[in-house]
Amino acid sequence: MKEDGIGPGQIVRRRSDGGLEYQHDELTIEEPLEIRMRGETIATTMRTPGHDEELAAGFLLSEAVIRDRARIENFTRPETARNRENIITVDLAGGTKVKLNFAQRLGTISSSCGLCGKKSIDAIRQNFAPIASTSLRISIETLLSLPDLLRQHQSDFDRTGGIHAAGIFDSNGKPLIVREDIGRHNAVDKAVGRAFLDGNLPLGCHVLLVSGRASFEIMQKALAAGIPIVASVSAPSSLAMEFARDSNQTLVGFLRPPSFNIYSHVERIVLD
Amino acid sequence: MKEDGIGPGQIVRRRSDGGLEYQHDELTIEEPLEIRMRGETIATTMRTPGHDEELAAGFLLSEAVIRDRARIENFTRPETARNRENIITVDLAGGTKVKLNFAQRLGTISSSCGLCGKKSIDAIRQNFAPIASTSLRISIETLLSLPDLLRQHQSDFDRTGGIHAAGIFDSNGKPLIVREDIGRHNAVDKAVGRAFLDGNLPLGCHVLLVSGRASFEIMQKALAAGIPIVASVSAPSSLAMEFARDSNQTLVGFLRPPSFNIYSHVERIVLD
Repeated sequence: MKEDGIGPGQIVRRRSDGGLEYQHDELTIEEPLEIRMRGETIATTMRTPGHDEELAAGFLLSEAVIRDRARIENFTRPETARNRENIITVDLAGGTKVKLNFAQRLGTISSSCGLCGKKSIDAIRQNFAPIASTSLRISIETLLSLPDLLRQHQSDFDRTGGIHAAGIFDSNGKPLIVREDIGRHNAVDKAVGRAFLDGNLPLGCHVLLVSGRASFEIMQKALAAGIPIVASVSAPSSLAMEFARDSNQTLVGFLRPPSFNIYSHVERIVLD
Repeated sequence: MKEDGIGPGQIVRRRSDGGLEYQHDELTIEEPLEIRMRGETIATTMRTPGHDEELAAGFLLSEAVIRDRARIENFTRPETARNRENIITVDLAGGTKVKLNFAQRLGTISSSCGLCGKKSIDAIRQNFAPIASTSLRISIETLLSLPDLLRQHQSDFDRTGGIHAAGIFDSNGKPLIVREDIGRHNAVDKAVGRAFLDGNLPLGCHVLLVSGRASFEIMQKALAAGIPIVASVSAPSSLAMEFARDSNQTLVGFLRPPSFNIYSHVERIVLD
């Protein structure tokens, strides 16, 4: 079936020498995931399939819907739905009280964006206390080693060139979790969700590195996991910097060895 | 006020020679915009301030809430709200009937993501008919010239390094509109919104170039504006390719001269 001259899985590639060829291309998969709780849809997000339980857990944590690991009993898939692999139900422990805001109850928060249904930035901030003062310090050498380490632990990037990654590292640069997703927020939710499900929060001695931009939602998700240092290979937004300063988080941007910028709480980076 | 060792607007920069310096850094501004219609909040999106009217118009078009330019009478700001510059009200012409879905009526669609409140991809597709067959063709030379042209017409990128751009070009590579925003979707909404407000839709002989990834929401927004060719300097998602094939849109990815990939409807690119 060669509709429009390109068969399924085929693309036309123009090489750098100007030659043309048909290629097989593996694109990053993007499909909706519907997260359900107590019979209601509480979020739908476009994600790369895989690690859906982590994504759901990280999302619920970031949204401050669930703060205690023990509240999550199980994850299930509907038995009969047509797209059952794109639906996940979070079963809560008996007696669990959840605080869903109006929007969340109506099933329309979305995109893991950390904003939906919120009436103001202030409302978001109030969900989590600032990072408690910790003794965490990391060296410049460790910081500079992280982008390479993240790339080494990514599985999909080389193949598709179109996926974001989030990695959680200890203060010596040892990777704890690396996750990938077509969405920046989802990659972070998956990494944070894994640590949450493993009972490892707060991650007060760890660093989060993201492959994309550091927007304030990323800082918020890191704060939900208690992570004091967030590094990004790209630019932070003004709001991310503001949020980091208020939340006692160290924000590193443009981490492109041998250079980087520090936007807040420089005291955690050993500069001399 | 040097909390955490860094003053307002100041950052610490590690240069490539290993030296450290304090710098003034202009970060891309990220603030929420609340879009109101008929007294209700219909969306809140994190955006770079500026061109808010275009953003609102492009969003309403992409969401298929408003399809006819004449339905929009005016944009106003609330007179008294504390953050009035972050709220925009769309005043509709008398007698306008708008079709808001359940989620939209409840004021919780968000992020310009094109997904919120939608129960399925099918529901999104049904909003817009495929591109009608057009005679649009563009040459490889024109296609290869677009990334440089986009960069030349960007104002903020060089300064901040953290902003997305969307440009609409004619088939000879002449720029019609270039817009920037911290959000990929917003940059496209602003560009498409400008054309919509100017009464220039459908843009059946134009090309949309985006600086980031081509996700299916970008294809959807292009389709809402009737744009037959979408090019991205980065990767498309699998769903974007599927959507493009179904919607009779040409999708070009990894447009990094002298190379590029064509994922659908190759007939619009003059390859010989």
